[in-house]
Amino acid sequence: MRLKREVYIGELNKDFIGKEVTVSGWVLRRRDHGGIIFLDLRDRSGLLQVVFEEDIDQEVHNLADSIRIEYVVSVRGKIRKRPEGMENPKISTGDIELVATDVEIHNTSKTPPFPLDEDLSEVSEALRLKYRYLEMRSPEGLTPFIFRHKVNHSIREFLNSRGFLEIETPYLTKSTPEGARDYLVPSRLYPGKFYALPQSPQLFKQILMVAGVDRYYQIVRCFRDEDLRADRQPEFTQLDMEMSFVEEQDVMALIEELMSYIFEKNLGITLSTPFPVITFEKALEEYGTDRPDLRFDLKLQNLSELFKDSSFKVFRGALDAGGVVKGLKAPATFSRKELEDLTKFAQDLGAKGLAWIKYSKNGKTFEEKWNSPIVKFFEPSVLERLVEVFKVEEEQVTFFFVADSKEIANLVLGELRKHIANKLNLIPQGVFTFTWVVDFPLFEWDDEENRLVSVHHPFTHPKEEDLPLLDTDPLKVRARAYDLVLNGIEVGGGSIRIHRKDLQQKIFKLLSISEEEAEEKFGFLLNALEFGAPPHGGIAFGLDRLIMLMLGKKSIREVIAFPKTQRAQCLLTGAPAEVKIEQILELHLLPGWEKKPKTE
Amino acid sequence: MRLKREVYIGELNKDFIGKEVTVSGWVLRRRDHGGIIFLDLRDRSGLLQVVFEEDIDQEVHNLADSIRIEYVVSVRGKIRKRPEGMENPKISTGDIELVATDVEIHNTSKTPPFPLDEDLSEVSEALRLKYRYLEMRSPEGLTPFIFRHKVNHSIREFLNSRGFLEIETPYLTKSTPEGARDYLVPSRLYPGKFYALPQSPQLFKQILMVAGVDRYYQIVRCFRDEDLRADRQPEFTQLDMEMSFVEEQDVMALIEELMSYIFEKNLGITLSTPFPVITFEKALEEYGTDRPDLRFDLKLQNLSELFKDSSFKVFRGALDAGGVVKGLKAPATFSRKELEDLTKFAQDLGAKGLAWIKYSKNGKTFEEKWNSPIVKFFEPSVLERLVEVFKVEEEQVTFFFVADSKEIANLVLGELRKHIANKLNLIPQGVFTFTWVVDFPLFEWDDEENRLVSVHHPFTHPKEEDLPLLDTDPLKVRARAYDLVLNGIEVGGGSIRIHRKDLQQKIFKLLSISEEEAEEKFGFLLNALEFGAPPHGGIAFGLDRLIMLMLGKKSIREVIAFPKTQRAQCLLTGAPAEVKIEQILELHLLPGWEKKPKTE
Repeated sequence: MRLKREVYIGELNKDFIGKEVTVSGWVLRRRDHGGIIFLDLRDRSGLLQVVFEEDIDQEVHNLADSIRIEYVVSVRGKIRKRPEGMENPKISTGDIELVATDVEIHNTSKTPPFPLDEDLSEVSEALRLKYRYLEMRSPEGLTPFIFRHKVNHSIREFLNSRGFLEIETPYLTKSTPEGARDYLVPSRLYPGKFYALPQSPQLFKQILMVAGVDRYYQIVRCFRDEDLRADRQPEFTQLDMEMSFVEEQDVMALIEELMSYIFEKNLGITLSTPFPVITFEKALEEYGTDRPDLRFDLKLQNLSELFKDSSFKVFRGALDAGGVVKGLKAPATFSRKELEDLTKFAQDLGAKGLAWIKYSKNGKTFEEKWNSPIVKFFEPSVLERLVEVFKVEEEQVTFFFVADSKEIANLVLGELRKHIANKLNLIPQGVFTFTWVVDFPLFEWDDEENRLVSVHHPFTHPKEEDLPLLDTDPLKVRARAYDLVLNGIEVGGGSIRIHRKDLQQKIFKLLSISEEEAEEKFGFLLNALEFGAPPHGGIAFGLDRLIMLMLGKKSIREVIAFPKTQRAQCLLTGAPAEVKIEQILELHLLPGWEKKPKTE
Repeated sequence: MRLKREVYIGELNKDFIGKEVTVSGWVLRRRDHGGIIFLDLRDRSGLLQVVFEEDIDQEVHNLADSIRIEYVVSVRGKIRKRPEGMENPKISTGDIELVATDVEIHNTSKTPPFPLDEDLSEVSEALRLKYRYLEMRSPEGLTPFIFRHKVNHSIREFLNSRGFLEIETPYLTKSTPEGARDYLVPSRLYPGKFYALPQSPQLFKQILMVAGVDRYYQIVRCFRDEDLRADRQPEFTQLDMEMSFVEEQDVMALIEELMSYIFEKNLGITLSTPFPVITFEKALEEYGTDRPDLRFDLKLQNLSELFKDSSFKVFRGALDAGGVVKGLKAPATFSRKELEDLTKFAQDLGAKGLAWIKYSKNGKTFEEKWNSPIVKFFEPSVLERLVEVFKVEEEQVTFFFVADSKEIANLVLGELRKHIANKLNLIPQGVFTFTWVVDFPLFEWDDEENRLVSVHHPFTHPKEEDLPLLDTDPLKVRARAYDLVLNGIEVGGGSIRIHRKDLQQKIFKLLSISEEEAEEKFGFLLNALEFGAPPHGGIAFGLDRLIMLMLGKKSIREVIAFPKTQRAQCLLTGAPAEVKIEQILELHLLPGWEKKPKTE
């Protein structure tokens, strides 16, 4: 290298006027005005105008003349004040420019497949992922990764200051599928045996508590071979934590401090603590979901009681079948077309239909007040009761109703609530509203497997007062679990764990895991529980998702340097890819796939 | 939990005398003196004597009476000064004790398979790994992991302060075997395709440089499916770094600062910088290895010139075959038995034999001065020259000689040098001697594959002045590579990378990697090099090994929480393990192993 960088562009300012410097970077833009060449030179820290004047050394001018966008160059020259009226207040170096005396071209560049100085959100994601290095190099391209770096560091700062130890746990471990599917890694040394990539370090962190670590954390990769729906990745990053001698409120209080620290430090936002706590039951009742978005109100109301004597056959039918009638008040009225769309929205989620009633507070007559094909089925007193139940203060509102099983009614109205809030711009932006959800059921019934399954995982401690229910009515047992929800999205989940072998065995039994299977899969945990396992609990955060939310991004792919697509492919490297047949045979495996075209 | 911890044991001191506290931990020892029960209670931070006196509440006394070692308990009571003469200066709470008023037993414990309050180095490693959680819980058991945690944090502190960004790269990536064997991960969605676990994030960090990240690092897991020799692990942790617009000396200077920072911060040791730099050629010549241990002298000498006219047929034969005669001076004499052992040592390494000559400076006669079956073959002037060459100042020394190919002579004498230094206690302990090794050859010849292979990896930049040799004598081309050696063990290695596509293609060609293969494996890198790749270079450290050396441990397994054995097994979890056949079939694979007994 002939010209070596002396300073980052972002460090330059008026103090450098008159000084000679060498900077290095990429050419974002290039202009040529009657022999004067202007380059906008960019490094990670900023943008600088570089001028090659006419009277420059001819060889240097020729070199400069050959420079195209995205060439990578070092330029030496003198910093001067920009001519009056030519300042650019948008950039930190807007008052100055570099008058070049020398240039070195480190590398040329083909023309990028998309211009880097424009808004890249119009570029297809597939193209951006294939050329991720160009997207990252664009002026705002590194912002999410610099932010992520800082968040990670502030997490570590906080946890280290609280006595947490970051301890690395294995990635080549044992397959214990209970929940999602494991990624398997064939073993060459042990024919027929496999490692598995961890879905989380759950068992290891519990073992670390048995080991007396007391406070553990790890920013760690986790792997789930799931059918990728929504915004999931085959590998994702978790902030994993565990503490000994704690109860729910200890973990929750610490996490509130942690969140306050990282939001303050990285966004300058002061969170209000303690975070509200809502039970699973109440969350479903009022928001239709266990991940309620509390940035806005619009609570659901259970109207089963109100409509219990209704002759309206849609409501009647649902109630008679043991279902519910639930309602939602939207502070607006909707056109016929809009109501049709909302009905379609509800039906796509599984509702048979969506009943609605428009209400105008100031309507003089019944007809002016109540507008809906179904009002005729209801006593006016029932309708007036609606106004009371929903505490209507607005001039005009629309009530929506779903009469169905509790599950469908909650799902549909929960989603409708968010949909309408979005549509009506009821969701404040730039606001971060946390809530804890607690008192989850420990088990749910899996129809397919015809057995109880864990709502969280089999190591979750039941509530002490519900322990007797394990024998009588296990579906009623509540878990010592807590999920952290931010703006309607689950960002973390945890629990107090079982630390006694007998209780752990009882839970396995209730989950129809045989003693033999429990021993085979979890024997090492059961062993450890026999050697002085302390009471302990913890939590894990989806770090990709948390950072996405902090940045106001729409997808976790925006905050992962080299993400996979929804179809689990890396568009940059082409992974997964074919390997030599020898590599497979060496793993004591045989091809079991049909010949498929290479493009698959 | 009835009794909740209020304070860590390590925080207690005389200031707490008279105060009531609740502590939690494990019972390391238990004594019973006429109704008074003494427990040594241990948490991560320290050890505390707990006394249950006779006049305590009967129920509490009964509980205390049932407590055995490694039970996990909380104890409430009052801190008091220990009786005169009962102080224990070895522990920080040695002046005080806790007089218990209440106790809660959180969990019982079976008797541990080895006592935790004794030196565990006598316990077999297999047993310690199976019960890793007990080993870690022993009084010094967490020390390596607390240390490792702190080192990692100080690395991050330093690098963050220098503008480095920690960016996470994928673990599910593409197989590009060039060097060690990849661990493969079958893909369920793409029959016949595989991800690979990264041997290092080499290509991603180069891509990040093309992306303008400028300074990258990552503390990252890497995976190599090698036949495990020496002290290797299938998964290990690397400190991975890369910088743009740099040359060798920039990376090396930064690393010297980094090492100084972490040694100062974590060991209180001030390293002397700059570290010495030795060329590959000179390292082999003088130390017989490219990982010289510079804590002690004992340089090898090439004696080929001295013995060029010798009639001694062993030397003669080696020299005539194009080999060398090299020698080593040990500042001691050895018994016949010792000399036999040393000869065996040399032969095990491939030497045909080991010639030796004892020299006594003050010997009055030739026979008193020179003692060896072979002295008769040499002119006295040649022998006197030996004394000069080796700058003998000691009264008695022994010269050792190996006459063989350069490779064998270097290997044998290099190992013998360390062996003798150990035997003679010439290696100062607690000393950390770094050295850079540079000017490695870019290629070496692989007889098995019958082609050139990279000494480091194919992305290493050749020395500028050696570029013409690529066409004429590629084995003479030196690399812009640098290895960091600490006390004779390689802890890091790096290089300036190739940033131009044409040169990268040329290197692939010299490595007999076809254009098609290069495109298939490394196409994404070659593409990236066409879009303004900057000059860049970096380095990677084996973090396990560095921490092992800092702690003076003998094996990296001592500093990894859950290591695998030399046979790649996890003795705690039993990984790798069998999986359900359905899991294999779902990955479009078929069993290809013979039925083997389950114990394999």
